[in-house]
Amino acid sequence: MNEMQKDELTKALHDCMEACNHCYDACLEEEDVKMMSACIRLDRECADFCGFVEQAVSRDTPFLEELLNVCATICKACADECRGHSHDHCQHCAQMCDKCAEVCASFTA
Amino acid sequence: MNEMQKDELTKALHDCMEACNHCYDACLEEEDVKMMSACIRLDRECADFCGFVEQAVSRDTPFLEELLNVCATICKACADECRGHSHDHCQHCAQMCDKCAEVCASFTA
Amino acid sequence: MNEMQKDELTKALHDCMEACNHCYDACLEEEDVKMMSACIRLDRECADFCGFVEQAVSRDTPFLEELLNVCATICKACADECRGHSHDHCQHCAQMCDKCAEVCASFTA
Amino acid sequence: MNEMQKDELTKALHDCMEACNHCYDACLEEEDVKMMSACIRLDRECADFCGFVEQAVSRDTPFLEELLNVCATICKACADECRGHSHDHCQHCAQMCDKCAEVCASFTA
Repeated sequence: MNEMQKDELTKALHDCMEACNHCYDACLEEEDVKMMSACIRLDRECADFCGFVEQAVSRDTPFLEELLNVCATICKACADECRGHSHDHCQHCAQMCDKCAEVCASFTA
Repeated sequence: MNEMQKDELTKALHDCMEACNHCYDACLEEEDVKMMSACIRLDRECADFCGFVEQAVSRDTPFLEELLNVCATICKACADECRGHSHDHCQHCAQMCDKCAEVCASFTA
Repeated sequence: MNEMQKDELTKALHDCMEACNHCYDACLEEEDVKMMSACIRLDRECADFCGFVEQAVSRDTPFLEELLNVCATICKACADECRGHSHDHCQHCAQMCDKCAEVCASFTA
Repeated sequence: MNEMQKDELTKALHDCMEACNHCYDACLEEEDVKMMSACIRLDRECADFCGFVEQAVSRDTPFLEELLNVCATICKACADECRGHSHDHCQHCAQMCDKCAEVCASFTA
């Protein structure tokens, strides 16, 4: 992985972590929190894992491929859940998760 | 801090982290999730911080006092929120948070 | 996974995290730190991941199998490195990592 | 804290986390690892805490001030250690830590 690829990966992980935490925060403020409970849960899972991987990338972890594989899975699950909700924060989160899943997958082929 | 004190601190942090994450999980399953939104939020804050401090203790962090001060503050805030809800998981979480706050404070005098 | 299994898994992850962070700490105090650099690095990787998974288990993560798979891989790598060093902290760490890898693997079959 | 301030804070925390992990990684590759052991240790402390705070900021933690206070302390300690080593990665890390400490402190007055 060259520096440009590392920057692309770091950016995707970071944007995803931020979007997930923002969505988590906003879901907890919605009128119908109950409807958002799966979204809240996945947002946290995804934010925590992306945050972890971002750190691991920055210290040149020897387990990059294994981490990116799981990361793509978690991002896809979170994107699928978010996509089903019409709130702006959910739609934005779905996009960032899809993007991150795609970038992670591109480095594990 | 001797080994016995370290074990006491580690146990308090760990029990608190587990109780908070269990309460977080259970709150998201409640009928009235909206009423639990502050509790969900504080459970995550508290679980994440206690988990962080537990790791920091196990690597003999030079910032123990600073971390324990903040930890006591977060645990107290989470205990205060949980105490107001009658669910068993909230009451249990309040107890573990109070205990953890007390143990953290005892090592920062 | 029943409660007894969850406790077994949590204990294995926790003991491994503690052993890795203790080994990390002790390696940095050794006379020949250079010889320990791979050990220091893997100790951190393994401690951080086990700590993450322990939290994920306590909040009933839907990604348990994926996380345990990676965790077993990381624990094995750390065990293999530690096993080659004669220090007590390395030998103890190798044992805890082997044990954790085994427990993780037993829940992913 | 408005959006521009939040972005400034997030950037400072992120740059510091990256510089610390890069320095940690590079220190472990140096000829004289023993001389770098305090630096390795503080790099990890600082990277882990900055990474934690970055996540906390992105979910609008209610404990921002407490976290930023500790963060400034940790960043200053890491900067002081790194400044004493002539390696480029240490000098760069010292700068990022100083900057992050300054930004954290500016939001806790």
